[in-house]
Amino acid sequence: MKVLVINGPNLNMLGNREPHIYGNATLDDLISFIKDTFRENFEIEFFQSNHEGEIIDKLHEANDTFDGIVINPGAFTHYSYAIYDAIKSININCVEVHISNIHKRQEEFRKNSVTAGACIGQISGFGFYGYILAINALVNSI
Amino acid sequence: MKVLVINGPNLNMLGNREPHIYGNATLDDLISFIKDTFRENFEIEFFQSNHEGEIIDKLHEANDTFDGIVINPGAFTHYSYAIYDAIKSININCVEVHISNIHKRQEEFRKNSVTAGACIGQISGFGFYGYILAINALVNSI
Amino acid sequence: MKVLVINGPNLNMLGNREPHIYGNATLDDLISFIKDTFRENFEIEFFQSNHEGEIIDKLHEANDTFDGIVINPGAFTHYSYAIYDAIKSININCVEVHISNIHKRQEEFRKNSVTAGACIGQISGFGFYGYILAINALVNSI
Amino acid sequence: MKVLVINGPNLNMLGNREPHIYGNATLDDLISFIKDTFRENFEIEFFQSNHEGEIIDKLHEANDTFDGIVINPGAFTHYSYAIYDAIKSININCVEVHISNIHKRQEEFRKNSVTAGACIGQISGFGFYGYILAINALVNSI
Amino acid sequence: MKVLVINGPNLNMLGNREPHIYGNATLDDLISFIKDTFRENFEIEFFQSNHEGEIIDKLHEANDTFDGIVINPGAFTHYSYAIYDAIKSININCVEVHISNIHKRQEEFRKNSVTAGACIGQISGFGFYGYILAINALVNSI
Amino acid sequence: MKVLVINGPNLNMLGNREPHIYGNATLDDLISFIKDTFRENFEIEFFQSNHEGEIIDKLHEANDTFDGIVINPGAFTHYSYAIYDAIKSININCVEVHISNIHKRQEEFRKNSVTAGACIGQISGFGFYGYILAINALVNSI
Amino acid sequence: MKVLVINGPNLNMLGNREPHIYGNATLDDLISFIKDTFRENFEIEFFQSNHEGEIIDKLHEANDTFDGIVINPGAFTHYSYAIYDAIKSININCVEVHISNIHKRQEEFRKNSVTAGACIGQISGFGFYGYILAINALVNSI
Amino acid sequence: MKVLVINGPNLNMLGNREPHIYGNATLDDLISFIKDTFRENFEIEFFQSNHEGEIIDKLHEANDTFDGIVINPGAFTHYSYAIYDAIKSININCVEVHISNIHKRQEEFRKNSVTAGACIGQISGFGFYGYILAINALVNSI
Amino acid sequence: MKVLVINGPNLNMLGNREPHIYGNATLDDLISFIKDTFRENFEIEFFQSNHEGEIIDKLHEANDTFDGIVINPGAFTHYSYAIYDAIKSININCVEVHISNIHKRQEEFRKNSVTAGACIGQISGFGFYGYILAINALVNSI
Amino acid sequence: MKVLVINGPNLNMLGNREPHIYGNATLDDLISFIKDTFRENFEIEFFQSNHEGEIIDKLHEANDTFDGIVINPGAFTHYSYAIYDAIKSININCVEVHISNIHKRQEEFRKNSVTAGACIGQISGFGFYGYILAINALVNSI
Amino acid sequence: MKVLVINGPNLNMLGNREPHIYGNATLDDLISFIKDTFRENFEIEFFQSNHEGEIIDKLHEANDTFDGIVINPGAFTHYSYAIYDAIKSININCVEVHISNIHKRQEEFRKNSVTAGACIGQISGFGFYGYILAINALVNSI
Amino acid sequence: MKVLVINGPNLNMLGNREPHIYGNATLDDLISFIKDTFRENFEIEFFQSNHEGEIIDKLHEANDTFDGIVINPGAFTHYSYAIYDAIKSININCVEVHISNIHKRQEEFRKNSVTAGACIGQISGFGFYGYILAINALVNSI
Repeated sequence: MKVLVINGPNLNMLGNREPHIYGNATLDDLISFIKDTFRENFEIEFFQSNHEGEIIDKLHEANDTFDGIVINPGAFTHYSYAIYDAIKSININCVEVHISNIHKRQEEFRKNSVTAGACIGQISGFGFYGYILAINALVNSI
Repeated sequence: MKVLVINGPNLNMLGNREPHIYGNATLDDLISFIKDTFRENFEIEFFQSNHEGEIIDKLHEANDTFDGIVINPGAFTHYSYAIYDAIKSININCVEVHISNIHKRQEEFRKNSVTAGACIGQISGFGFYGYILAINALVNSI
Repeated sequence: MKVLVINGPNLNMLGNREPHIYGNATLDDLISFIKDTFRENFEIEFFQSNHEGEIIDKLHEANDTFDGIVINPGAFTHYSYAIYDAIKSININCVEVHISNIHKRQEEFRKNSVTAGACIGQISGFGFYGYILAINALVNSI
Repeated sequence: MKVLVINGPNLNMLGNREPHIYGNATLDDLISFIKDTFRENFEIEFFQSNHEGEIIDKLHEANDTFDGIVINPGAFTHYSYAIYDAIKSININCVEVHISNIHKRQEEFRKNSVTAGACIGQISGFGFYGYILAINALVNSI
Repeated sequence: MKVLVINGPNLNMLGNREPHIYGNATLDDLISFIKDTFRENFEIEFFQSNHEGEIIDKLHEANDTFDGIVINPGAFTHYSYAIYDAIKSININCVEVHISNIHKRQEEFRKNSVTAGACIGQISGFGFYGYILAINALVNSI
Repeated sequence: MKVLVINGPNLNMLGNREPHIYGNATLDDLISFIKDTFRENFEIEFFQSNHEGEIIDKLHEANDTFDGIVINPGAFTHYSYAIYDAIKSININCVEVHISNIHKRQEEFRKNSVTAGACIGQISGFGFYGYILAINALVNSI
Repeated sequence: MKVLVINGPNLNMLGNREPHIYGNATLDDLISFIKDTFRENFEIEFFQSNHEGEIIDKLHEANDTFDGIVINPGAFTHYSYAIYDAIKSININCVEVHISNIHKRQEEFRKNSVTAGACIGQISGFGFYGYILAINALVNSI
Repeated sequence: MKVLVINGPNLNMLGNREPHIYGNATLDDLISFIKDTFRENFEIEFFQSNHEGEIIDKLHEANDTFDGIVINPGAFTHYSYAIYDAIKSININCVEVHISNIHKRQEEFRKNSVTAGACIGQISGFGFYGYILAINALVNSI
Repeated sequence: MKVLVINGPNLNMLGNREPHIYGNATLDDLISFIKDTFRENFEIEFFQSNHEGEIIDKLHEANDTFDGIVINPGAFTHYSYAIYDAIKSININCVEVHISNIHKRQEEFRKNSVTAGACIGQISGFGFYGYILAINALVNSI
Repeated sequence: MKVLVINGPNLNMLGNREPHIYGNATLDDLISFIKDTFRENFEIEFFQSNHEGEIIDKLHEANDTFDGIVINPGAFTHYSYAIYDAIKSININCVEVHISNIHKRQEEFRKNSVTAGACIGQISGFGFYGYILAINALVNSI
Repeated sequence: MKVLVINGPNLNMLGNREPHIYGNATLDDLISFIKDTFRENFEIEFFQSNHEGEIIDKLHEANDTFDGIVINPGAFTHYSYAIYDAIKSININCVEVHISNIHKRQEEFRKNSVTAGACIGQISGFGFYGYILAINALVNSI
Repeated sequence: MKVLVINGPNLNMLGNREPHIYGNATLDDLISFIKDTFRENFEIEFFQSNHEGEIIDKLHEANDTFDGIVINPGAFTHYSYAIYDAIKSININCVEVHISNIHKRQEEFRKNSVTAGACIGQISGFGFYGYILAINALVNSI
């Protein structure tokens, strides 16, 4: 079983980016945390990009090579109808995850997700642990 | 460790209520499923009510007797600022859960949660399994 | 054949409540009027509550014991998605009725019904006689 | 006693028009159904037009010759302030009726009636039987 | 010099129509009042219709036969983009007039005019005298 | 094969009407252009009216006598839910066409079409040539 | 003279609930403060509930037994049209009071009161002292 | 008989201010034009100010010394609720006038008048001649 | 101890201004009423202006010479962000007061206060007595 | 003569992507269909990308090398002001095309095009045939 | 060369006014800073007022006596269409400046400028230094 | 000291792109102008891209290698929350610049910047000279 974890724009800056919201740990820390949690249970590939187009390309490729996807679309969550369409254009399940609780953030725009409607579900607010939950949810749905 | 699981209005009708959305299993099935999953790991109490006031009272009581709360506020999700205030008035963590993916539902009002901003996070779209994830998220946060 | 007539918040104040809008007759007068109209034709039970939760509980109970429901949700008409869900969670027909013409009322909020979409239809503006029409509509639909 | 029943645009297409919503019966069937129901009790005239202006003209004429009006303004319900004004410009009562439950329809525009505020009341969702209810409501109001 | 005065829907009901707003005088009274005011100064033709299409047709015809138009579009003021377009499609000046002050009316929809933007100006609130002002304004503009 | 081309309000004023937007050619020029283009390939009937009701009547009649319809609803595009319903009430395909690019026009109201949702498609911005495209699209769809 | 003081949802949590906004004093402290201020001047009864229905019931009962009411509807302020109706359905004066200045709160929803329109006036922002002002205002109005 | 003509902000700049909209004539030209038109018929006083407060003061003073007021509130038209209140606080009639047709202006904000609802009527779009019409309307109303 | 009472635009017209809303008593009556109520307890200065700028100037001056301010900003309540800023720019407490209950007024714009967020609290609906409450609230806050 | 056909995000998934909306044919099928239709008449180049930036780059390059462009911006239609600007920054004509009728789609966001205002026109709803129409429209405009 | 620097409402309170946003330096400090920066390069006059009308008067006067204007309209930025009109009514260039970054402020209303559209440009967020930039921009534009 | 100047989408088309708005000078002209202005004062690097992702990547890289950034996000200004987040994720100051005055542009969408809130300030409307101001502002802030 193969799972793809996609991290969207600015998640490569974890650790440096607004640490009072996103914490001090880095993207590498996140990847290690996930790998350590699931170990050999199933294969997990990680992909990060700040390019909407690359995320769409990756979603399309995943259609044939993965059993499911966990995606944190970062700020694309709030306006990328193209990613919404990309998720709808493939045949495997996708789970949306957010590190912070988007319903608690100060900026109004963060409260709306245009991509979640294409996923099977959304998990928001549990820090890195949200990825563990998302992978469990994904595996449970397959 | 003690966890309280609150189910809001109409969740007592699970199994009968729009089964194409919520499935055929009943609230008792949900409770059994959760109990079977966690067994003796920690104590879980279940509470269901169609009364906003009773849910608020229960949240207040829980403040002294539980370590955390998982809540599916049902339709109260979309307008009960009183429950939002109740969660903010207590000192223990709360996780919001929804059986269906509220971002995928046809009715516009389902997309907005007024209560999630008072919780540590929200999980939506994974059926009964969402409660398992929510309890895990809750335990992880304590 | 059994019909349940539910009256929501403040309808117990009929006769006292803004009589230029709702008239001088009381809830008891309304009940007598309905009983006198239908006599032994079929069984009618009356229920009034100012508690949203009690109305939801009653709707659930009615599922097994009544053939249809006439409901005047009072002010809940305008915000109780929980009652909307309750009506959708049961298998018997429901007709919404309003004493005054909600499209003619001065307050903007009165013009929108969030519950009517769960009913088979809505009748508004004919005073107490609207209940007679609603029961006829209900019986006709069964 | 004389009652006028006005049917607005596209109601001449009943039977052909979206039968999953409006049913397979025709406008003639509707007229027969109403006539058969009320027989000699009182005089009923039927008028159908796809022209907003003709409906306004008819409403004005009715002022002197009828005791009351039942109107299904069809799509004019949602934008014809001219019909709203026409109903307000005459001295006899008017009841608005809709075959389908406009609160349940998928198109957002169907939920709002600009004409109902000029009528004594509105009945929506009971198929052809709604006209029977509307005539009863009208007679009861005179 | 020839002026056309167009009165839109329900203005044939003047005298009968909501007299607390529009007064007790009839459309004939209005016509006499205008005729008496201007006498032989210039030729005035009067046209009233409840049909949007007839008003459009009349506007088109007027293009060749009149020097200017005064129009009270009645309720069409608030939604008839077709009349707006009709006024823009002709080469003679048009003045919009309203008997009541549309900014003072209770209904929100009365405050907006979609047709005034195609006219050279708008006069509102001066009863029948507004037509005299409008004709003067029109003559002054030619 | 028979095609009906319906032109809505003010399109009879082509040539005179805002020529910087709609050009100097007349409705007759448009008709000749279409006829010259398709010659004997199939039968084309032309209908123009400034009356919403006549357009609805024509759409209903066309149901039995034409194979498809091209319609330029003019300003009715932006508010005539009655024409929207009329198109939905018939069984033949309809294509919406606009001479100017409605997305480029200055008036905000021009950007929204309430009728296009009832058609198989919409063509906008190509002048008279848009009718040729629309007829081709229609024929292609049958 | 008898005054009823109603406290709505979560006001029983005073002292524990967001003390940076509502302060550290409890509901009992509030009651003592009011009692100490007015002593034997007039009779004051206190009622707190998290149940919208109980507040409505209490308002109805008060109609016969009290001379006036001070109400802090808590979060119900922002959506309970049923409490608005309840206040309008009784014959005694009601004053709305809020501990914090609702115009200064961060959440947008706190700025709007749907219940104040049914009261004689509203007092907001003066902590517990607002209740003293409200009772004075009430007594002054009787 | 005494009439006061108030010109609001930036009308002292007539002639210099956006002449393609307001023309090349100055405020003095406007005053001469009005004086020449009415000569000795009645007394007219002119007042111009760029200060909202001065206009309010003037309106209050006029209450005792004038028979009516013509006001062009300039940009205050669009936001000065204080001038709206000032007009409502006096006992003499007021007519609102605008040089340009505010419904035709490009800026969206120009289309709404918050002051017209306090006047007996509004005249817009006829250049300086609009003041003549407004004075006539005013005199006619007294 | 020194208190400044500021009355905004049109409050000098009290007694004359819409007496069904504001009563028949004048501004002098109001001042006498306040003076009589507090007598020698503390020094009260009164200031009324229809000029937004004068009110801002006065607020600034008060910063050094008064202990607190009661302000009824009149219509400025609804749009003067400059007064909002002025209150925020000084170091003494300010209480907002309104004679009528702004939540009950017919005009929609009256329901929103842009200035209250800069004050410690707001009192609305108690006629002249509201000023007494406001001064008490102010003194209590110092 | 050279024409460029640009297909935006997810159009490479044609055949796999929501086939009930977009059909079973692939992007290669679309290209073949277009090539077969126009054969040697003129040169057509095809470009597909899921990257907004690549589409912008391509539009810029096309400025010197193509005579016109047909573009299906996919989901970028609904938010890419950058593509709107790109089309405005070049000197050749562009036609927008959509496979499905965007006015008929369930998601609200699909109804608005931010890019069509930069094109000469838009064609929507005719499946692959829409590209043929678009190329014809383009050629006709050159 | 002569430049006028206008500071609007509450800028006289600099140093005292919300120093965490506007800093501790005073208006005199600002003036000295500007004078020190430009010394004898060109003549600079400073004007501050809390009165909208005085700012408008000053703008009009400047038309003949200055070569350009830098304006910080303070809170008038957000609603003074009269100042917008005043800037448009003169023939010299105007640059808008704000001390704080208005796009970063917490209050929603601060994000919109109704006056900037009448200026040649806007500078926001650079503290006192923004005035230096604005004067440079102004000089550069002349 | 090192400064990075980022130009977003379509700015490579300067000179060709809508020259009545952006002028005839090219991006190379802009770069020369900036270089000529600042010469050896400090190091300036220029970067232009039509790819949102490349701009984000560049912002991240700049974090370690530059002292500050000037950015003209082009159309991304109006929707790229990802660039907003990218600017917030780095530790160096950023200044937003626009060639045209975005408050004066005809398209409504141009008036709102979603990225300016992450910058220290914004400069808009001064053509190429705005970049000089922006660099000065940036240097002044470091």
